[in-house]
Amino acid sequence: VRDNILALEFVSGEGKIITSGKAVTKLSAGYDLARLLIGSEGTLGIITRATLKLSPRPKTHTTARVLYADAVTAAEGVVALLRLNQLPAAIELLDANALDLVRDAVRDIGNAGAMLLLELDDEDRERQIDAVRHTVAHALGFDVANTTEERNRLWQARKELSPRMREIAPKKINEDVVVPVSRIPALLAAIDELKHHYHLTILSFGHAGNGNLHVNMLINPDDPQESQRAEQCLADLFATVHQLGGSISGEHGIGMVKRPFMEQEHDDATRELFQRVKQAFDPKGVLNPDKMI
Amino acid sequence: VRDNILALEFVSGEGKIITSGKAVTKLSAGYDLARLLIGSEGTLGIITRATLKLSPRPKTHTTARVLYADAVTAAEGVVALLRLNQLPAAIELLDANALDLVRDAVRDIGNAGAMLLLELDDEDRERQIDAVRHTVAHALGFDVANTTEERNRLWQARKELSPRMREIAPKKINEDVVVPVSRIPALLAAIDELKHHYHLTILSFGHAGNGNLHVNMLINPDDPQESQRAEQCLADLFATVHQLGGSISGEHGIGMVKRPFMEQEHDDATRELFQRVKQAFDPKGVLNPDKMI
Repeated sequence: VRDNILALEFVSGEGKIITSGKAVTKLSAGYDLARLLIGSEGTLGIITRATLKLSPRPKTHTTARVLYADAVTAAEGVVALLRLNQLPAAIELLDANALDLVRDAVRDIGNAGAMLLLELDDEDRERQIDAVRHTVAHALGFDVANTTEERNRLWQARKELSPRMREIAPKKINEDVVVPVSRIPALLAAIDELKHHYHLTILSFGHAGNGNLHVNMLINPDDPQESQRAEQCLADLFATVHQLGGSISGEHGIGMVKRPFMEQEHDDATRELFQRVKQAFDPKGVLNPDKMI
Repeated sequence: VRDNILALEFVSGEGKIITSGKAVTKLSAGYDLARLLIGSEGTLGIITRATLKLSPRPKTHTTARVLYADAVTAAEGVVALLRLNQLPAAIELLDANALDLVRDAVRDIGNAGAMLLLELDDEDRERQIDAVRHTVAHALGFDVANTTEERNRLWQARKELSPRMREIAPKKINEDVVVPVSRIPALLAAIDELKHHYHLTILSFGHAGNGNLHVNMLINPDDPQESQRAEQCLADLFATVHQLGGSISGEHGIGMVKRPFMEQEHDDATRELFQRVKQAFDPKGVLNPDKMI
Protein backbone atom coordinates (compact mmCIF):
# COMPACT_ATOMS: atom_id res chain seq x y z
CA VAL A 1 0.00 0.00 0.00
CA ARG A 2 2.78 2.44 0.93
CA ASP A 3 4.30 2.26 -2.54
CA ASN A 4 0.99 2.98 -4.26
CA ILE A 5 -0.28 6.03 -2.34
CA LEU A 6 0.84 9.37 -3.74
CA ALA A 7 -1.04 11.71 -1.40
CA LEU A 8 -3.36 11.72 1.60
CA GLU A 9 -5.68 14.19 3.22
CA PHE A 10 -6.36 13.45 6.88
CA VAL A 11 -7.84 15.02 9.99
CA SER A 12 -5.49 15.22 12.97
CA GLY A 13 -6.44 14.65 16.60
CA GLU A 14 -7.11 18.37 16.93
CA GLY A 15 -9.51 18.38 14.01
CA LYS A 16 -7.07 20.06 11.62
CA ILE A 17 -7.20 19.05 7.96
CA ILE A 18 -3.71 18.09 6.77
CA THR A 19 -2.63 17.23 3.25
CA SER A 20 0.58 15.41 2.39
CA GLY A 21 1.83 14.45 -1.05
CA LYS A 22 0.76 15.39 -4.57
CA ALA A 23 -0.33 13.49 -7.68
CA VAL A 24 3.32 13.07 -8.68
CA THR A 25 5.73 10.12 -8.45
CA LYS A 26 8.68 12.20 -7.23
CA LEU A 27 8.45 14.72 -4.42
CA SER A 28 10.99 16.22 -2.08
CA ALA A 29 9.43 19.19 -0.32
CA GLY A 30 8.69 18.49 3.34
CA TYR A 31 8.10 15.51 5.60
CA ASP A 32 6.36 12.56 3.97
CA LEU A 33 3.47 12.37 6.42
CA ALA A 34 1.34 10.31 4.02
CA ARG A 35 3.67 7.31 4.32
CA LEU A 36 3.71 7.70 8.09
CA LEU A 37 -0.09 7.61 8.25
CA ILE A 38 -0.22 4.36 6.30
CA GLY A 39 -0.11 1.49 8.78
CA SER A 40 -0.60 3.80 11.78
CA GLU A 41 -3.90 2.05 12.54
CA GLY A 42 -5.92 5.23 12.94
CA THR A 43 -3.76 6.51 15.80
CA LEU A 44 -2.41 9.59 13.98
CA GLY A 45 -5.29 10.80 11.84
CA ILE A 46 -8.51 9.97 10.07
CA ILE A 47 -7.85 9.60 6.35
CA THR A 48 -10.44 11.52 4.33
CA ARG A 49 -8.95 11.41 0.83
CA ALA A 50 -6.29 9.35 -0.93
CA THR A 51 -4.55 9.81 -4.28
CA LEU A 52 -3.52 6.44 -5.64
CA LYS A 53 -0.81 5.57 -8.12
CA LEU A 54 -2.40 3.56 -10.91
CA SER A 55 -0.53 1.03 -13.02
CA PRO A 56 -1.44 -0.58 -16.32
CA ARG A 57 -3.64 -3.65 -15.86
CA PRO A 58 -1.31 -6.54 -14.97
CA LYS A 59 -0.48 -9.03 -17.66
CA THR A 60 -2.14 -12.41 -17.41
CA HIS A 61 -0.27 -15.07 -15.48
CA THR A 62 0.49 -18.75 -15.74
CA THR A 63 -0.17 -20.76 -12.58
CA ALA A 64 2.32 -23.46 -11.59
CA ARG A 65 2.28 -25.89 -8.66
CA VAL A 66 5.31 -27.46 -7.00
CA LEU A 67 4.96 -30.35 -4.54
CA TYR A 68 7.57 -31.08 -1.86
CA ALA A 69 8.19 -33.72 0.80
CA ASP A 70 8.11 -31.12 3.59
CA ALA A 71 7.69 -27.41 4.28
CA VAL A 72 11.37 -26.72 5.03
CA THR A 73 12.37 -28.04 1.59
CA ALA A 74 9.56 -26.01 0.00
CA ALA A 75 10.84 -22.90 1.80
CA GLU A 76 14.32 -23.58 0.41
CA GLY A 77 12.63 -23.69 -3.00
CA VAL A 78 11.18 -20.23 -2.34
CA VAL A 79 14.64 -18.86 -1.58
CA ALA A 80 15.95 -20.33 -4.84
CA LEU A 81 12.99 -18.98 -6.86
CA LEU A 82 13.61 -15.47 -5.56
CA ARG A 83 17.14 -15.62 -7.00
CA LEU A 84 15.72 -15.92 -10.52
CA ASN A 85 16.07 -12.90 -12.75
CA GLN A 86 12.37 -12.80 -13.53
CA LEU A 87 10.51 -13.05 -10.23
CA PRO A 88 7.20 -14.90 -9.93
CA ALA A 89 4.33 -12.47 -9.27
CA ALA A 90 3.15 -14.65 -6.37
CA ILE A 91 4.54 -17.53 -4.30
CA GLU A 92 2.07 -19.13 -1.89
CA LEU A 93 3.17 -21.91 0.47
CA LEU A 94 1.02 -24.57 2.18
CA ASP A 95 2.54 -26.91 4.78
CA ALA A 96 1.60 -30.57 5.52
CA ASN A 97 -1.11 -29.77 8.06
CA ALA A 98 -2.68 -27.33 5.63
CA LEU A 99 -2.61 -29.95 2.85
CA ASP A 100 -4.08 -32.60 5.20
CA LEU A 101 -7.16 -30.40 5.62
CA VAL A 102 -7.88 -30.35 1.88
CA ARG A 103 -6.25 -33.60 0.73
CA ASP A 104 -9.55 -35.38 0.09
CA ALA A 105 -10.81 -32.53 -2.11
CA VAL A 106 -7.67 -32.00 -4.15
CA ARG A 107 -6.57 -34.67 -6.58
CA ASP A 108 -3.00 -35.54 -7.55
CA ILE A 109 -1.13 -34.35 -4.46
CA GLY A 110 -0.57 -37.84 -3.01
CA ASN A 111 1.12 -37.59 0.37
CA ALA A 112 3.09 -34.43 -0.46
CA GLY A 113 4.21 -32.56 2.66
CA ALA A 114 4.15 -29.04 1.18
CA MET A 115 2.99 -27.14 -1.87
CA LEU A 116 4.04 -23.95 -3.60
CA LEU A 117 1.61 -22.14 -5.89
CA LEU A 118 3.31 -19.77 -8.33
CA GLU A 119 1.99 -17.10 -10.63
CA LEU A 120 4.39 -16.53 -13.53
CA ASP A 121 4.31 -13.63 -15.97
CA ASP A 122 2.85 -14.75 -19.27
CA GLU A 123 5.43 -12.76 -21.15
CA ASP A 124 8.28 -15.00 -22.23
CA ARG A 125 6.22 -17.88 -20.82
CA GLU A 126 8.21 -20.89 -22.03
CA ARG A 127 11.58 -19.54 -20.90
CA GLN A 128 10.16 -18.70 -17.47
CA ILE A 129 8.57 -22.11 -17.02
CA ASP A 130 11.89 -23.72 -17.96
CA ALA A 131 13.80 -21.58 -15.46
CA VAL A 132 11.34 -22.43 -12.67
CA ARG A 133 11.31 -26.14 -13.60
CA HIS A 134 15.11 -26.18 -13.42
CA THR A 135 15.11 -24.35 -10.06
CA VAL A 136 12.67 -26.80 -8.44
CA ALA A 137 14.23 -29.90 -10.03
CA HIS A 138 14.55 -31.58 -6.60
CA ALA A 139 10.78 -31.28 -5.90
CA LEU A 140 8.28 -34.19 -5.90
CA GLY A 141 6.19 -32.73 -8.69
CA PHE A 142 5.81 -29.73 -10.98
CA ASP A 143 2.61 -28.86 -12.85
CA VAL A 144 1.71 -25.97 -15.10
CA ALA A 145 -1.86 -24.91 -15.87
CA ASN A 146 -2.66 -24.58 -19.55
CA THR A 147 -6.36 -23.73 -19.24
CA THR A 148 -8.51 -21.71 -16.82
CA GLU A 149 -9.95 -24.99 -15.57
CA GLU A 150 -6.49 -26.34 -14.78
CA ARG A 151 -5.58 -23.07 -13.13
CA ASN A 152 -8.63 -23.20 -10.86
CA ARG A 153 -7.82 -26.80 -10.02
CA LEU A 154 -4.27 -25.89 -8.95
CA TRP A 155 -5.53 -23.04 -6.76
CA GLN A 156 -8.26 -25.23 -5.23
CA ALA A 157 -6.11 -26.36 -2.27
CA ARG A 158 -5.51 -22.75 -1.25
CA LYS A 159 -9.12 -21.67 -1.78
CA GLU A 160 -10.60 -24.55 0.21
CA LEU A 161 -8.27 -23.99 3.13
CA SER A 162 -9.82 -21.02 4.93
CA PRO A 163 -13.44 -22.27 4.99
CA ARG A 164 -12.30 -25.69 6.21
CA MET A 165 -10.19 -24.17 8.99
CA ARG A 166 -13.11 -22.05 10.15
CA GLU A 167 -15.22 -25.20 10.20
CA ILE A 168 -12.95 -27.34 12.40
CA ALA A 169 -11.50 -24.58 14.60
CA PRO A 170 -13.71 -21.48 14.52
CA LYS A 171 -11.79 -19.86 17.38
CA LYS A 172 -8.28 -20.61 16.08
CA ILE A 173 -5.39 -18.21 16.64
CA ASN A 174 -4.22 -16.79 13.30
CA GLU A 175 -0.81 -15.14 13.34
CA ASP A 176 0.80 -13.12 10.61
CA VAL A 177 4.55 -13.25 11.17
CA VAL A 178 7.12 -12.13 8.62
CA VAL A 179 10.84 -12.97 8.34
CA PRO A 180 13.51 -12.21 5.73
CA VAL A 181 12.84 -14.61 2.86
CA SER A 182 16.15 -16.42 3.40
CA ARG A 183 15.01 -17.33 6.93
CA ILE A 184 11.67 -18.96 6.02
CA PRO A 185 13.25 -22.45 6.13
CA ALA A 186 14.51 -21.76 9.69
CA LEU A 187 11.10 -20.38 10.69
CA LEU A 188 9.27 -23.45 9.41
CA ALA A 189 11.77 -25.77 11.14
CA ALA A 190 11.18 -23.89 14.41
CA ILE A 191 7.40 -24.10 14.01
CA ASP A 192 7.77 -27.87 13.55
CA GLU A 193 9.56 -28.09 16.90
CA LEU A 194 7.01 -25.85 18.65
CA LYS A 195 4.21 -28.06 17.33
CA HIS A 196 5.67 -31.13 19.00
CA HIS A 197 6.85 -29.38 22.14
CA TYR A 198 3.44 -27.87 22.93
CA HIS A 199 1.27 -30.68 21.47
CA LEU A 200 -0.64 -28.27 19.26
CA THR A 201 -1.99 -28.53 15.72
CA ILE A 202 -0.28 -25.70 13.87
CA LEU A 203 -0.93 -25.09 10.21
CA SER A 204 1.16 -22.62 8.21
CA PHE A 205 0.47 -21.11 4.82
CA GLY A 206 0.82 -17.76 3.14
CA HIS A 207 2.74 -15.30 1.09
CA ALA A 208 6.15 -16.98 1.16
CA GLY A 209 7.51 -14.66 -1.53
CA ASN A 210 7.26 -11.85 1.05
CA GLY A 211 8.45 -14.00 3.98
CA ASN A 212 4.95 -13.53 5.39
CA LEU A 213 3.34 -16.66 6.87
CA HIS A 214 -0.03 -17.20 8.48
CA VAL A 215 0.66 -19.47 11.42
CA ASN A 216 -2.65 -20.91 12.56
CA MET A 217 -3.01 -22.66 15.92
CA LEU A 218 -6.14 -24.78 15.66
CA ILE A 219 -7.08 -24.59 19.32
CA ASN A 220 -10.28 -24.58 21.26
CA PRO A 221 -10.02 -21.56 23.55
CA ASP A 222 -12.60 -23.12 25.89
CA ASP A 223 -9.96 -25.69 26.82
CA PRO A 224 -7.91 -23.77 29.42
CA GLN A 225 -4.89 -26.13 29.24
CA GLU A 226 -4.70 -25.93 25.46
CA SER A 227 -5.10 -22.16 25.64
CA GLN A 228 -2.22 -21.89 28.08
CA ARG A 229 0.01 -24.04 25.88
CA ALA A 230 -0.95 -21.88 22.88
CA GLU A 231 -0.06 -18.72 24.78
CA GLN A 232 3.40 -20.04 25.66
CA CYS A 233 3.85 -21.30 22.10
CA LEU A 234 2.96 -17.86 20.76
CA ALA A 235 5.55 -16.18 22.96
CA ASP A 236 8.17 -18.67 21.70
CA LEU A 237 7.08 -18.12 18.09
CA PHE A 238 7.42 -14.35 18.37
CA ALA A 239 10.83 -14.70 20.06
CA THR A 240 11.94 -16.94 17.17
CA VAL A 241 10.66 -14.46 14.60
CA HIS A 242 12.63 -11.67 16.25
CA GLN A 243 15.76 -13.84 16.42
CA LEU A 244 15.40 -14.41 12.69
CA GLY A 245 15.24 -10.65 12.02
CA GLY A 246 11.50 -10.63 11.41
CA SER A 247 8.39 -9.10 12.87
CA ILE A 248 5.18 -10.19 14.56
CA SER A 249 3.03 -8.65 11.83
CA GLY A 250 3.49 -8.52 8.08
CA GLU A 251 0.05 -7.24 7.15
CA HIS A 252 -2.60 -7.54 9.89
CA GLY A 253 -1.15 -4.92 12.23
CA ILE A 254 -0.90 -4.72 16.02
CA GLY A 255 -4.32 -3.54 17.19
CA MET A 256 -5.06 -4.34 20.83
CA VAL A 257 -4.31 -8.09 20.94
CA LYS A 258 -0.66 -7.84 19.90
CA ARG A 259 0.07 -4.60 21.74
CA PRO A 260 1.78 -6.40 24.66
CA PHE A 261 4.38 -7.72 22.20
CA MET A 262 5.43 -4.24 21.04
CA GLU A 263 8.08 -4.26 23.80
CA GLN A 264 9.77 -7.20 22.08
CA GLU A 265 9.28 -5.66 18.67
CA HIS A 266 10.71 -2.20 19.41
CA ASP A 267 13.25 -1.07 22.02
CA ASP A 268 12.55 1.60 24.65
CA ALA A 269 13.98 4.49 22.62
CA THR A 270 11.88 3.63 19.58
CA ARG A 271 8.66 3.19 21.56
CA GLU A 272 9.28 6.49 23.34
CA LEU A 273 9.66 8.15 19.94
CA PHE A 274 6.40 6.49 18.78
CA GLN A 275 4.68 8.10 21.77
CA ARG A 276 6.06 11.52 20.88
CA VAL A 277 5.02 11.16 17.25
CA LYS A 278 1.55 10.18 18.45
CA GLN A 279 1.57 13.25 20.71
CA ALA A 280 2.49 15.49 17.75
CA PHE A 281 -0.53 14.34 15.72
CA ASP A 282 -3.00 13.75 18.54
CA PRO A 283 -2.08 15.74 21.67
CA LYS A 284 -5.36 14.87 23.42
CA GLY A 285 -5.12 11.14 22.67
CA VAL A 286 -8.55 10.88 21.06
CA LEU A 287 -7.56 8.78 18.02
CA ASN A 288 -7.81 5.01 18.61
CA PRO A 289 -6.25 5.41 22.08
CA ASP A 290 -6.05 1.67 22.82
CA LYS A 291 -4.46 0.60 19.55
CA MET A 292 -0.89 -0.31 18.65
CA ILE A 293 1.21 1.90 20.99
CA VAL B 1 14.51 6.04 -2.79
CA ARG B 2 11.52 5.62 -0.46
CA ASP B 3 10.36 2.51 -2.29
CA ASN B 4 13.76 0.86 -2.09
CA ILE B 5 14.67 1.28 1.59
CA LEU B 6 13.50 -1.53 3.86
CA ALA B 7 15.01 -0.37 7.16
CA LEU B 8 17.02 2.45 8.71
CA GLU B 9 19.04 2.94 11.85
CA PHE B 10 19.40 6.57 12.87
CA VAL B 11 20.48 8.74 15.77
CA SER B 12 17.84 11.17 17.04
CA GLY B 13 18.46 14.72 18.23
CA GLU B 14 18.87 13.40 21.78
CA GLY B 15 21.54 10.92 20.72
CA LYS B 16 19.26 7.89 20.93
CA ILE B 17 19.80 5.09 18.43
CA ILE B 18 16.50 4.25 16.73
CA THR B 19 15.81 1.43 14.29
CA SER B 20 12.82 1.28 11.97
CA GLY B 21 11.95 -1.45 9.49
CA LYS B 22 13.32 -4.94 8.88
CA ALA B 23 14.80 -6.80 5.91
CA VAL B 24 11.29 -7.72 4.74
CA THR B 25 9.04 -6.36 1.99
CA LYS B 26 5.85 -6.37 4.11
CA LEU B 27 5.68 -4.96 7.63
CA SER B 28 2.84 -3.71 9.75
CA ALA B 29 4.06 -3.36 13.33
CA GLY B 30 4.49 0.25 14.36
CA TYR B 31 5.03 3.65 12.77
CA ASP B 32 7.08 3.62 9.56
CA LEU B 33 9.73 6.07 10.76
CA ALA B 34 12.19 4.97 8.06
CA ARG B 35 10.03 6.43 5.29
CA LEU B 36 9.60 9.62 7.30
CA LEU B 37 13.38 10.02 7.65
CA ILE B 38 13.88 9.75 3.89
CA GLY B 39 13.72 13.22 2.42
CA SER B 40 13.77 14.89 5.85
CA GLU B 41 17.09 16.56 4.94
CA GLY B 42 18.86 15.62 8.15
CA THR B 43 16.38 17.48 10.35
CA LEU B 44 15.01 14.39 12.16
CA GLY B 45 18.01 12.12 12.58
CA ILE B 46 21.43 11.10 11.37
CA ILE B 47 21.15 7.91 9.33
CA THR B 48 23.81 5.39 10.40
CA ARG B 49 22.66 2.23 8.63
CA ALA B 50 20.32 1.42 5.76
CA THR B 51 18.88 -1.88 4.53
CA LEU B 52 18.18 -1.65 0.81
CA LYS B 53 15.77 -3.64 -1.29
CA LEU B 54 17.74 -5.12 -4.18
CA SER B 55 16.22 -5.97 -7.56
CA PRO B 56 17.52 -8.14 -10.35
CA ARG B 57 19.81 -6.24 -12.69
CA PRO B 58 17.58 -4.31 -15.12
CA LYS B 59 17.16 -5.68 -18.59
CA THR B 60 19.00 -3.87 -21.34
CA HIS B 61 17.14 -1.08 -23.06
CA THR B 62 16.63 0.29 -26.54
CA THR B 63 17.13 4.03 -26.89
CA ALA B 64 14.74 5.99 -29.09
CA ARG B 65 14.63 9.69 -29.98
CA VAL B 66 11.58 11.72 -30.93
CA LEU B 67 11.88 15.23 -32.39
CA TYR B 68 9.08 17.81 -32.10
CA ALA B 69 8.40 21.33 -33.34
CA ASP B 70 8.06 22.67 -29.79
CA ALA B 71 8.19 21.63 -26.13
CA VAL B 72 4.43 21.79 -25.53
CA THR B 73 3.81 19.26 -28.34
CA ALA B 74 6.62 17.09 -26.95
CA ALA B 75 4.99 17.22 -23.50
CA GLU B 76 1.71 16.11 -25.06
CA GLY B 77 3.69 13.22 -26.50
CA VAL B 78 4.86 12.32 -22.97
CA VAL B 79 1.26 12.21 -21.75
CA ALA B 80 0.36 9.88 -24.63
CA LEU B 81 3.40 7.63 -24.04
CA LEU B 82 2.44 7.21 -20.38
CA ARG B 83 -0.92 5.80 -21.48
CA LEU B 84 0.83 2.86 -23.19
CA ASN B 85 0.49 -0.50 -21.50
CA GLN B 86 4.23 -1.03 -21.39
CA LEU B 87 5.79 2.12 -19.98
CA PRO B 88 9.17 3.38 -21.19
CA ALA B 89 11.83 3.04 -18.46
CA ALA B 90 12.86 6.67 -19.01
CA ILE B 91 11.47 9.73 -20.80
CA GLU B 92 13.79 12.72 -20.94
CA LEU B 93 12.68 16.01 -22.47
CA LEU B 94 14.83 18.86 -23.89
CA ASP B 95 13.24 22.14 -24.97
CA ALA B 96 14.32 24.46 -27.82
CA ASN B 97 16.75 26.52 -25.74
CA ALA B 98 18.37 23.33 -24.48
CA LEU B 99 18.70 22.04 -28.05
CA ASP B 100 20.12 25.40 -29.23
CA LEU B 101 23.00 24.96 -26.79
CA VAL B 102 24.06 21.64 -28.33
CA ARG B 103 22.75 21.99 -31.89
CA ASP B 104 26.21 22.37 -33.44
CA ALA B 105 27.48 19.20 -31.77
CA VAL B 106 24.50 16.97 -32.50
CA ARG B 107 23.80 15.96 -36.06
CA ASP B 108 20.38 15.28 -37.59
CA ILE B 109 18.17 17.40 -35.33
CA GLY B 110 17.72 20.23 -37.86
CA ASN B 111 15.70 23.05 -36.31
CA ALA B 112 13.63 20.80 -34.05
CA GLY B 113 12.13 22.67 -31.11
CA ALA B 114 12.09 19.80 -28.62
CA MET B 115 13.40 16.27 -28.15
CA LEU B 116 12.31 13.26 -26.17
CA LEU B 117 14.80 10.52 -25.33
CA LEU B 118 13.21 7.22 -24.46
CA GLU B 119 14.56 4.04 -22.97
CA LEU B 120 12.41 1.06 -23.97
CA ASP B 121 12.54 -2.41 -22.44
CA ASP B 122 14.36 -4.77 -24.76
CA GLU B 123 11.82 -7.47 -24.04
CA ASP B 124 9.24 -7.59 -26.79
CA ARG B 125 11.35 -4.95 -28.56
CA GLU B 126 9.65 -4.79 -31.95
CA ARG B 127 6.12 -4.57 -30.58
CA GLN B 128 7.16 -1.80 -28.19
CA ILE B 129 8.92 0.21 -30.88
CA ASP B 130 5.80 -0.09 -33.05
CA ALA B 131 3.55 1.08 -30.22
CA VAL B 132 5.79 4.09 -29.53
CA ARG B 133 6.14 4.92 -33.23
CA HIS B 134 2.35 4.89 -33.55
CA THR B 135 1.92 7.06 -30.44
CA VAL B 136 4.34 9.73 -31.68
CA ALA B 137 3.15 9.63 -35.30
CA HIS B 138 2.63 13.43 -35.32
CA ALA B 139 6.28 14.11 -34.38
CA LEU B 140 8.94 15.55 -36.73
CA GLY B 141 11.18 12.52 -36.47
CA PHE B 142 11.58 9.17 -34.77
CA ASP B 143 14.89 7.28 -34.51
CA VAL B 144 15.81 4.02 -32.83
CA ALA B 145 19.37 3.06 -31.88
CA ASN B 146 20.45 -0.35 -33.13
CA THR B 147 24.05 -0.25 -31.89
CA THR B 148 25.86 1.11 -28.83
CA GLU B 149 27.38 3.77 -31.06
CA GLU B 150 23.95 4.91 -32.24
CA ARG B 151 22.68 4.87 -28.68
CA ASN B 152 25.53 7.10 -27.51
CA ARG B 153 24.87 9.43 -30.43
CA LEU B 154 21.18 9.79 -29.47
CA TRP B 155 22.06 10.54 -25.85
CA GLN B 156 24.76 13.01 -26.87
CA ALA B 157 22.43 16.06 -26.76
CA ARG B 158 21.52 15.33 -23.14
CA LYS B 159 25.10 14.54 -22.08
CA GLU B 160 26.58 17.70 -23.63
CA LEU B 161 23.96 19.94 -22.06
CA SER B 162 25.15 20.28 -18.46
CA PRO B 163 28.82 21.09 -19.20
CA ARG B 164 27.78 23.66 -21.82
CA MET B 165 25.32 25.34 -19.45
CA ARG B 166 28.01 25.59 -16.77
CA GLU B 167 30.30 27.17 -19.36
CA ILE B 168 27.98 29.97 -20.52
CA ALA B 169 26.15 30.62 -17.21
CA PRO B 170 28.17 29.29 -14.29
CA LYS B 171 25.90 31.01 -11.76
CA LYS B 172 22.59 30.00 -13.34
CA ILE B 173 19.49 29.27 -11.22
CA ASN B 174 18.52 25.60 -11.53
CA GLU B 175 15.03 24.71 -10.36
CA ASP B 176 13.54 21.29 -9.93
CA VAL B 177 9.78 21.64 -10.16
CA VAL B 178 7.38 18.72 -10.53
CA VAL B 179 3.77 18.63 -11.76
CA PRO B 180 1.30 15.82 -12.47
CA VAL B 181 2.38 14.37 -15.83
CA SER B 182 -0.85 15.47 -17.52
CA ARG B 183 0.04 19.10 -16.66
CA ILE B 184 3.52 19.20 -18.22
CA PRO B 185 2.16 20.76 -21.43
CA ALA B 186 0.55 23.56 -19.37
CA LEU B 187 3.76 24.03 -17.36
CA LEU B 188 5.89 24.36 -20.49
CA ALA B 189 3.40 26.80 -22.04
CA ALA B 190 3.56 28.92 -18.86
CA ILE B 191 7.38 28.85 -18.88
CA ASP B 192 7.29 30.11 -22.47
CA GLU B 193 5.22 33.10 -21.38
CA LEU B 194 7.47 33.81 -18.36
CA LYS B 195 10.51 33.75 -20.63
CA HIS B 196 9.10 36.54 -22.79
CA HIS B 197 7.54 38.50 -19.97
CA TYR B 198 10.76 38.71 -17.93
CA HIS B 199 13.23 38.78 -20.87
CA LEU B 200 15.16 35.82 -19.51
CA THR B 201 16.85 32.86 -21.17
CA ILE B 202 15.13 29.86 -19.63
CA LEU B 203 16.08 26.35 -20.62
CA SER B 204 14.03 23.35 -19.50
CA PHE B 205 14.91 19.68 -19.57
CA GLY B 206 14.51 16.68 -17.36
CA HIS B 207 12.62 13.63 -16.26
CA ALA B 208 9.35 14.27 -18.05
CA GLY B 209 8.09 10.75 -17.28
CA ASN B 210 7.92 11.81 -13.64
CA GLY B 211 6.61 15.32 -14.37
CA ASN B 212 9.93 16.56 -12.98
CA LEU B 213 11.59 19.38 -14.97
CA HIS B 214 14.83 21.24 -14.43
CA VAL B 215 14.02 24.84 -15.23
CA ASN B 216 17.31 26.68 -15.70
CA MET B 217 17.47 30.48 -15.74
CA LEU B 218 20.73 31.36 -17.43
CA ILE B 219 21.32 34.59 -15.55
CA ASN B 220 24.34 36.50 -14.40
CA PRO B 221 23.69 37.18 -10.70
CA ASP B 222 26.17 40.09 -10.83
CA ASP B 223 23.60 41.95 -12.99
CA PRO B 224 21.19 43.29 -10.32
CA GLN B 225 18.36 44.01 -12.78
CA GLU B 226 18.50 40.56 -14.29
CA SER B 227 18.63 39.04 -10.81
CA GLN B 228 15.54 40.94 -9.77
CA ARG B 229 13.64 39.81 -12.86
CA ALA B 230 14.73 36.22 -12.18
CA GLU B 231 13.48 36.47 -8.60
CA GLN B 232 10.05 37.64 -9.74
CA CYS B 233 9.99 35.02 -12.47
CA LEU B 234 10.79 32.33 -9.89
CA ALA B 235 7.88 33.41 -7.68
CA ASP B 236 5.57 33.26 -10.72
CA LEU B 237 6.95 29.85 -11.71
CA PHE B 238 6.33 28.40 -8.25
CA ALA B 239 2.82 29.88 -8.15
CA THR B 240 2.11 28.24 -11.52
CA VAL B 241 3.46 24.91 -10.32
CA HIS B 242 1.17 25.03 -7.29
CA GLN B 243 -1.82 25.98 -9.46
CA LEU B 244 -1.08 22.91 -11.57
CA GLY B 245 -1.10 20.66 -8.49
CA GLY B 246 2.68 20.30 -8.38
CA SER B 247 5.54 21.09 -6.06
CA ILE B 248 8.64 23.27 -5.99
CA SER B 249 10.92 20.26 -5.61
CA GLY B 250 10.81 16.83 -7.19
CA GLU B 251 14.22 15.62 -6.12
CA HIS B 252 16.62 18.35 -4.92
CA GLY B 253 14.80 19.19 -1.69
CA ILE B 254 14.19 22.49 0.12
CA GLY B 255 17.41 23.23 2.02
CA MET B 256 17.85 26.86 2.95
CA VAL B 257 17.33 28.59 -0.40
CA LYS B 258 13.79 27.34 -1.00
CA ARG B 259 12.69 27.49 2.65
CA PRO B 260 10.82 30.82 2.14
CA PHE B 261 8.56 29.05 -0.36
CA MET B 262 7.40 26.41 2.14
CA GLU B 263 4.50 28.73 3.08
CA GLN B 264 3.17 28.41 -0.46
CA GLU B 265 3.88 24.70 -0.54
CA HIS B 266 2.16 23.73 2.73
CA ASP B 267 -0.66 25.41 4.66
CA ASP B 268 -0.39 26.60 8.27
CA ALA B 269 -1.80 23.43 9.82
CA THR B 270 0.64 21.21 7.91
CA ARG B 271 3.67 23.37 8.71
CA GLU B 272 2.68 23.45 12.38
CA LEU B 273 2.53 19.64 12.33
CA PHE B 274 5.97 19.54 10.65
CA GLN B 275 7.30 21.60 13.58
CA ARG B 276 5.81 19.20 16.10
CA VAL B 277 7.21 16.19 14.29
CA LYS B 278 10.62 17.89 14.27
CA GLN B 279 10.18 18.53 18.02
CA ALA B 280 9.42 14.85 18.62
CA PHE B 281 12.69 13.72 16.99
CA ASP B 282 14.91 16.65 17.93
CA PRO B 283 13.58 18.51 20.98
CA LYS B 284 16.73 20.65 21.30
CA GLY B 285 16.78 21.63 17.62
CA VAL B 286 20.36 20.51 17.02
CA LEU B 287 19.80 18.67 13.72
CA ASN B 288 20.21 20.90 10.63
CA PRO B 289 18.30 23.72 12.35
CA ASP B 290 18.28 26.04 9.31
CA LYS B 291 17.08 23.50 6.78
CA MET B 292 13.66 22.91 5.22
CA ILE B 293 11.19 23.89 8.00
